[in-house]
Amino acid sequence: MDNRSIGIFDSGIGGITVFSEIANDFPSENIIYLGDTAKFPYGGKSKETIIELTKENINFLMKYNVKLIVIACGTATSQALEEMQKIYDIPIIGIIEPTVNNIIDESVHKIGVIATEGTINSNSWENNIKSKNNNIQVINKACPLLAPMAEEGFTENEIARLVIKEYMKELKNEGLDKLILGCTHYPLFTKLIQEELGEKVEIINTAKQVSKTLAKMLKENGLDNNTMAGKHEIFLTDTKCKFIEIANKLFANKIKIENVKKAII
Amino acid sequence: MDNRSIGIFDSGIGGITVFSEIANDFPSENIIYLGDTAKFPYGGKSKETIIELTKENINFLMKYNVKLIVIACGTATSQALEEMQKIYDIPIIGIIEPTVNNIIDESVHKIGVIATEGTINSNSWENNIKSKNNNIQVINKACPLLAPMAEEGFTENEIARLVIKEYMKELKNEGLDKLILGCTHYPLFTKLIQEELGEKVEIINTAKQVSKTLAKMLKENGLDNNTMAGKHEIFLTDTKCKFIEIANKLFANKIKIENVKKAII
Repeated sequence: MDNRSIGIFDSGIGGITVFSEIANDFPSENIIYLGDTAKFPYGGKSKETIIELTKENINFLMKYNVKLIVIACGTATSQALEEMQKIYDIPIIGIIEPTVNNIIDESVHKIGVIATEGTINSNSWENNIKSKNNNIQVINKACPLLAPMAEEGFTENEIARLVIKEYMKELKNEGLDKLILGCTHYPLFTKLIQEELGEKVEIINTAKQVSKTLAKMLKENGLDNNTMAGKHEIFLTDTKCKFIEIANKLFANKIKIENVKKAII
Repeated sequence: MDNRSIGIFDSGIGGITVFSEIANDFPSENIIYLGDTAKFPYGGKSKETIIELTKENINFLMKYNVKLIVIACGTATSQALEEMQKIYDIPIIGIIEPTVNNIIDESVHKIGVIATEGTINSNSWENNIKSKNNNIQVINKACPLLAPMAEEGFTENEIARLVIKEYMKELKNEGLDKLILGCTHYPLFTKLIQEELGEKVEIINTAKQVSKTLAKMLKENGLDNNTMAGKHEIFLTDTKCKFIEIANKLFANKIKIENVKKAII
């Protein structure tokens, strides 16, 4: 048993999809969430910048003596996870490896991946999928407007519907088995994406896959916590943004976003 | 007469509104344009980061022995211009001062400003307007999705119409005399904004105002060039983006975007 906190970070609001999943699956775990809202969005930044920002975020979380870090950001996972695992001693997981491990089986022939431009250009999802099964065809599509739209709270309005329609054009008739939401902001658009692609395509929310893998990791490493109610702390690098208002609107049924503090990095 | 080039930079495609205006008004001037596409968007970044990036851009342009620099970016103007004017010897102009100087007269009582979050939070437009006439009422509205939408080429479609409608809600019934497009990406949405606000509101494109001021500056400082056809050079920090395709689509009637080179900063 280990009552230290789990540290989670993202560039902004997207990682709350992962945070809420983990909070729900592990009610007795203490969790510290960091949203790097001052430097959002990560999607179009260079690999060097993403590595620098990821280090800063991890260093911040480590000051709180976390036992494990979840990079709840597709861009930071694709550009910086490998580097971070070399530098730091504590377990760090991203969203790619857990997702790919959990969703690939023999029934899968064609997978779509939507993500930020940085993630798509890094080819991380495709490389990871191909390393497990080289016969799976992967169709990639960058969707640079979706994360900024989520931060504005435009996730279920007519604007969102039209943007999703535009981005799904290339994927719609590909006969995909699954579509991976390769950015943690994208589960907020699940309903619209499913409507656009139809029910045959399984939409993969990485948050659920990360949480599954986390359960194993905590157990195998003796890191799980059974004390009664886990505490949640939320830090943002810029607290003047719409994060709190929008997070509470979007995640009203899942998690309460309160006592948000300014992160000094 | 001075045949050195005019240097212009922006975070991305927005500054082309200024570039095309200047190229049109000064056909015999040599122009070097730098788009910092690798680090776009500037709108949500901290003042410190914007100052750092602005310095890098100016240093790059100075290697080409430019005679004057135009910061064709609202965010960089609002956050970094003053600092840059202290550091560098050559003339540097932004988009705020020229615009405010040219558009304020006694008939103006109420001005709207739309811009990125960084620019709006800096209060630069309002402070500048008030310093000239404290009786003018200024209504500010941050529009964080517009610059990313312009970089995607979504400027005249149904998505753009709905986003503009949403952002203009607060401004529509304010009885504005003028609306300043405080980000150089925004002139690409002029038609839709005018439709939404009606013909009574004068839409101010900063590119035209900067070009007017530039004419005076070149003349007064003996920097103008009368050799026959000015040469244009375009550099981008990331050439893999959609810049070239979209710039040529959006500016088809005004300027040809060709021979784009990678900027090593």
